[in-house]
Amino acid sequence: MRASRFFISTLKEAPSDAEIVSHKLMMRAGMIKRLGSGIYTYMPMGLKVIRKVEAIVREEMNRAGAIELSMPIVQPAELWQETGRWDKMGPEMMRVKDRHGRDYAIQPTSEEVVTDVVRSELKSYRQLPVNFYQVQTKFRDERRPRFGLMRGREFVMKDAYSFDKDVEGMQKSYASMFDAYTRIFTRFGLKFRAVAADTGAIGGNYSHEFHVIAQTGEDALVYCPSSDYAANMEAAEALALSSERLAASQQLVKASTPDTTKCEQVAQMLGLQLSQTVKSLALTVEKEENGRQVKENWLLLLRGDHELNEVKVNKVPGLSSFRFASEAEILDAYGTVPGYLGPINTKQPVKVVADRTVANMADFVCGANEAGYHFTGANWGRDCPEPIVADLRNVVEGDASPDGKGVLAIERGIEVGHVFQLGTAYSAKMEAVYLDEAGKPAPLQMGCYGIGVTRILGAAIEQNFDDKGIIWPDAIAPFEVVLAPMGYDRSEMVKLEADRLLAELLAAGVDVILDDRGLRPGAMFADWELIGVPHRVVIGERGLKEGNLEYQGRRDEAATAVPAAEMVGFIKAKLGK
Amino acid sequence: MRASRFFISTLKEAPSDAEIVSHKLMMRAGMIKRLGSGIYTYMPMGLKVIRKVEAIVREEMNRAGAIELSMPIVQPAELWQETGRWDKMGPEMMRVKDRHGRDYAIQPTSEEVVTDVVRSELKSYRQLPVNFYQVQTKFRDERRPRFGLMRGREFVMKDAYSFDKDVEGMQKSYASMFDAYTRIFTRFGLKFRAVAADTGAIGGNYSHEFHVIAQTGEDALVYCPSSDYAANMEAAEALALSSERLAASQQLVKASTPDTTKCEQVAQMLGLQLSQTVKSLALTVEKEENGRQVKENWLLLLRGDHELNEVKVNKVPGLSSFRFASEAEILDAYGTVPGYLGPINTKQPVKVVADRTVANMADFVCGANEAGYHFTGANWGRDCPEPIVADLRNVVEGDASPDGKGVLAIERGIEVGHVFQLGTAYSAKMEAVYLDEAGKPAPLQMGCYGIGVTRILGAAIEQNFDDKGIIWPDAIAPFEVVLAPMGYDRSEMVKLEADRLLAELLAAGVDVILDDRGLRPGAMFADWELIGVPHRVVIGERGLKEGNLEYQGRRDEAATAVPAAEMVGFIKAKLGK
Repeated sequence: MRASRFFISTLKEAPSDAEIVSHKLMMRAGMIKRLGSGIYTYMPMGLKVIRKVEAIVREEMNRAGAIELSMPIVQPAELWQETGRWDKMGPEMMRVKDRHGRDYAIQPTSEEVVTDVVRSELKSYRQLPVNFYQVQTKFRDERRPRFGLMRGREFVMKDAYSFDKDVEGMQKSYASMFDAYTRIFTRFGLKFRAVAADTGAIGGNYSHEFHVIAQTGEDALVYCPSSDYAANMEAAEALALSSERLAASQQLVKASTPDTTKCEQVAQMLGLQLSQTVKSLALTVEKEENGRQVKENWLLLLRGDHELNEVKVNKVPGLSSFRFASEAEILDAYGTVPGYLGPINTKQPVKVVADRTVANMADFVCGANEAGYHFTGANWGRDCPEPIVADLRNVVEGDASPDGKGVLAIERGIEVGHVFQLGTAYSAKMEAVYLDEAGKPAPLQMGCYGIGVTRILGAAIEQNFDDKGIIWPDAIAPFEVVLAPMGYDRSEMVKLEADRLLAELLAAGVDVILDDRGLRPGAMFADWELIGVPHRVVIGERGLKEGNLEYQGRRDEAATAVPAAEMVGFIKAKLGK
Repeated sequence: MRASRFFISTLKEAPSDAEIVSHKLMMRAGMIKRLGSGIYTYMPMGLKVIRKVEAIVREEMNRAGAIELSMPIVQPAELWQETGRWDKMGPEMMRVKDRHGRDYAIQPTSEEVVTDVVRSELKSYRQLPVNFYQVQTKFRDERRPRFGLMRGREFVMKDAYSFDKDVEGMQKSYASMFDAYTRIFTRFGLKFRAVAADTGAIGGNYSHEFHVIAQTGEDALVYCPSSDYAANMEAAEALALSSERLAASQQLVKASTPDTTKCEQVAQMLGLQLSQTVKSLALTVEKEENGRQVKENWLLLLRGDHELNEVKVNKVPGLSSFRFASEAEILDAYGTVPGYLGPINTKQPVKVVADRTVANMADFVCGANEAGYHFTGANWGRDCPEPIVADLRNVVEGDASPDGKGVLAIERGIEVGHVFQLGTAYSAKMEAVYLDEAGKPAPLQMGCYGIGVTRILGAAIEQNFDDKGIIWPDAIAPFEVVLAPMGYDRSEMVKLEADRLLAELLAAGVDVILDDRGLRPGAMFADWELIGVPHRVVIGERGLKEGNLEYQGRRDEAATAVPAAEMVGFIKAKLGK
């Protein structure tokens, strides 16, 4: 490719709405162009990266035996109504009416459509397993689109759906996709981590997320450096900090703690460690009992220095639809105001759930259910009944790994892939069955597997940039090599060598661009450093007179002289071709 | 590829809603699956064809210097309002509101968005010309979707947009795209024809359509076998059948023609040729004059055996917004009922437009503006004033070619491509300007160029099928070659040879599928004939014992024995590889 035949449009400044580095750099490098909130045109330079990402994804999906098809973007409401997601998806799903007033969704994902395809196409266990995938435009009407391609509304996703005859088969399909994803992210040349995850809105019972590691990542990833334990913060299991309860050694004492509603303040006032305090969170659960609406009071207890994990709360039996109690409800149940709650002497009966760590504490500090007072020396069994025990908190660095093989570390990541074991969550509702070996209908066991194709671009940049611009890994760079001639339009010697090198590198299967725009070296280098092409060859008269060209990798501090005759081989070696 | 790893799903019967052969065959061959009215999932076998079509399109677009980008599917209303097309596009354009109530279009085409990209990206004449294209999903909410991919609502289109600094440049860009399209359709291996066309709703002033020739085509293509004249029926110019007016030789006579409202009936009753009769069509034009709404009466005259061309009527000065007159309006203007109208003795003043052929007729027959009567021997000038003369009719086979180089022929075609010179139709409304050599802003000269990617599949089949199924041209076949082993699961000899051939053909760059499903020969052959793979190799024990395989092209009557050792070379020669 010659730069004069391509479209290059770089900016000195990023637009003011670009908050994070990948968004800024993609805008400045001319890779994307904003059309509306969360909606971008993929400009030629950006599209080229997207195509490379897609190609790697397709190769590995095909290698894993998945078969590509393409489902419509505009999908009839009826299928979404069958699974109940027409209502459940909320405003994130764009809905549209056709000229006859019929309802459609603009696909945010395609479980319903693929299950519909499969229920009419698959008849027999002999046709299983099958795994269909597509690489397609999706739309999700995010409440607050931002960060460029990271949280856009229109985006490209690879979504795959496996169908098996039994759970064991589904697990095999899942493992095969897990391996394919590992190959895909490895081939991208990105540092990544797969973590166990909660299944959330998609449903099902087992899932992993694939994250690109980046300090700016939205998600906290928990892992054990000395084992293969890894989970996202929502799913990472927190063990009790002491394995058994300590013996009580103090009396229960009511201490005056006026205007002291936070554990940090209480600990300071009483001269105690924050880790001796317990914080109390009042919940309300509304439910029907014998046709009447009743309210239950629940109290969650966490150690003062720990953070609540709401996903875990949802999993405590009875708390799947909890909400935080209002001040009026708190007054009614505890007889006091927030900041002084505790498990001892509540006004009304309260179900108390203690985090595993709290359940093993002794002589702890908690609210006295009286404004301005806390108890010290509180102990389970003696001062209040034994609590329900559950994992309620976020893990922290240094916690014991749940597999018992070390301590946990935390790093930041950007979610770019997600694999789910769905089981029969969709096939049961949509009556997607096959005939088993005995000729009897049985529901299909399903898995689904997504990769955020356009998001990969943002994530790759968040992981790989410097103050000059983007640093693409070779595999997904818009061009692998840029040829930067010094005076292409002035020096016949330079022009000849640049043209020769272009032709030979193209013939060697290298994706190379020759910058024949006639820019001055500073501007030319700045453009390609911003765009992030990983390998640069400078062709200048001075070097050529000694038979040399200059090579510089995007991360290299300085250029290396390479004999012109050896440059093609040198580049091929750099690229592993 | 092995059939057992691909998804093959053929049907004996087409669904009842499939009316035309390509729709039936694509459904039966498992290439597409209906999701809703005019909305299809592209199944693996169909998607493979689409990808081959797209690849050829991309290669030739790139060769022509066009640059690929990708514009959003969901596009803000504001841009469409700038050009007025938000209102003009009518219900064919799907509109959707986001969660904040903002309006968007689901792209039916992208002139507005690309012009918006260009007006902010292109500053100087030095950046021109540029031609951006995309291969993207489009949606048009057709009133009556039908014929499978031929007139679907969701479809894949390649759309390109060129921007030049002047008309001469635009014409060069247009010519370059015309040539690229010619290469594209030639590479598809389809018989096609480019014809001059009307510009219609897209606007602009010059355009050609590319049609795949097929007897079942919706459009009539007019061409001159002895010259390069070609136009679609809307645009084909009809000359006068006699180059000058014949002399009057008869008196004007009022003949009684009771219950005779059609030219055919009049000619029969009076014992005359249909070609001596003139049919009259009454139009009404409503317009504002000095702030008042006024109605004009217009009368169109065609020879009795000719057909009206409404697109041509629209181009007659004053008739751009005509409609046919109501019976009440006819009674008012002509004093009679439809069927007896004519240019002589109208009740009210009427503007008379005669088709070129009618204008040169003498002694013709026309309605007498009196129920039950026609005039014979009517003549211009003598019996009524000279008419306005215009080309109003469709050409017919045998008409003189407008270039004077022969006579016209007509064939049927399916429109698969369209190229337009738009001039400043969009750039003026959207203020898309560049700075010219003198530093002054000038509007961009634009062209646009579409190919209906998914429609190509339907058109290719309408041109290439037999009673067994589809006959794909090599270039866009889902697979170029199918290996059909007789007893792959029973005969080690057959299996070894089939596996060897698969590996060697793949290594030779042949897109080959080995049918390892273990079907009986009849069922296996029927599947591949239906699917339309153009080359088949049968591998059987009997032939192998003599060192032979059987080759049969999809159009061949019988198989040919080919030595096994020569088969790879034989296939490569067949495919021109």
